[in-house]
Amino acid sequence: MQDLAAQIAFILEIDKLKAVYRKTMVKADDNRNENSAEHSWHIALLAQTMATYAEHPINILRVTKMLLIHDIVEIDAGDLFAFADEEAHQAQEKKELEAAQRIFGLLPKALEKEMLNLWLEFEKADSVDAQFAKGMDRILPIFQNMSNNGGSWKVHNVCKAQVLKRNGYLRSSAPKLWEYVKQQVDVAVKKGWLLDG
Amino acid sequence: MQDLAAQIAFILEIDKLKAVYRKTMVKADDNRNENSAEHSWHIALLAQTMATYAEHPINILRVTKMLLIHDIVEIDAGDLFAFADEEAHQAQEKKELEAAQRIFGLLPKALEKEMLNLWLEFEKADSVDAQFAKGMDRILPIFQNMSNNGGSWKVHNVCKAQVLKRNGYLRSSAPKLWEYVKQQVDVAVKKGWLLDG
Repeated sequence: MQDLAAQIAFILEIDKLKAVYRKTMVKADDNRNENSAEHSWHIALLAQTMATYAEHPINILRVTKMLLIHDIVEIDAGDLFAFADEEAHQAQEKKELEAAQRIFGLLPKALEKEMLNLWLEFEKADSVDAQFAKGMDRILPIFQNMSNNGGSWKVHNVCKAQVLKRNGYLRSSAPKLWEYVKQQVDVAVKKGWLLDG
Repeated sequence: MQDLAAQIAFILEIDKLKAVYRKTMVKADDNRNENSAEHSWHIALLAQTMATYAEHPINILRVTKMLLIHDIVEIDAGDLFAFADEEAHQAQEKKELEAAQRIFGLLPKALEKEMLNLWLEFEKADSVDAQFAKGMDRILPIFQNMSNNGGSWKVHNVCKAQVLKRNGYLRSSAPKLWEYVKQQVDVAVKKGWLLDG
């Protein structure tokens, strides 16, 4: 039962991700901020829905696991706005690694190792699976903001180049989705939802 | 691009699950009610964490997909409290089937068929994968309520027999977890969190 106690401790710990809020808004719920737990659910299902656009063969189970766990570190490190500056992103990286070690460290050894390695693979984006997963994480706010009068982009004065840079993983991992993103950001600029530049 | 438009329509439609609230409470977020999207994320990760307790070989990818989609029907049908009466459960079943047909019907045909079939398999619980998935869906509130002074049980006067009945899938699909549940409900009765009976 020692393993079970550790597994339950982990499951209760990650409940806290439901209290970490992001900049993206939930249109259907009075535009309240989205939390990272429900976001993780959404991108896991996005991956099932868009898997056929993967340019290279992906292991959808590994992709799904990465997407389910990738934000857990925010329990300690908080959510950093995607378009924060470089210095803030570097400080965040250090906090997130420590968080991953603490939180996955609650698990029995074999599970800890598996989840920590998947988390690191996603962070480094150094595999086909991780690159596709990153693409899913980053394209979802485009769908959300385009259907919500610009959503978090408009509120935070985001520009087109920032969105394109952030979605660059799609260029090689899902070229058809990359073409779609390029069209959509132009539409968003015309509508005044993204700054041009 | 016709398929992509359909896939995006589905992804935007399911955003609404973030506005469907359950009786279970999020301890880390001032005990607000939990929504069905973040709950689905949590049980998908619970399945990864507890897969080794499966008594019969499971396909964890299929289990995970079932857990990610199983509550989507609540967008139309709403969440019914687990311990509502039999008549309410039967009326709910009809509404949920119609919802599944409408919402998965937004997808391109092949994806629609796959997701609808997985949803039906989960509902009928007529496979090893579906029974394990059901077990995950139902054991999570036990962990949550036991760590939260009885949580939704205490607020809604739930009794021990109801919790055991609802968790019956674990008896054959994950016997070690079933033993744990039986111990925990006795503890809960002693603490006054569940009614005895």
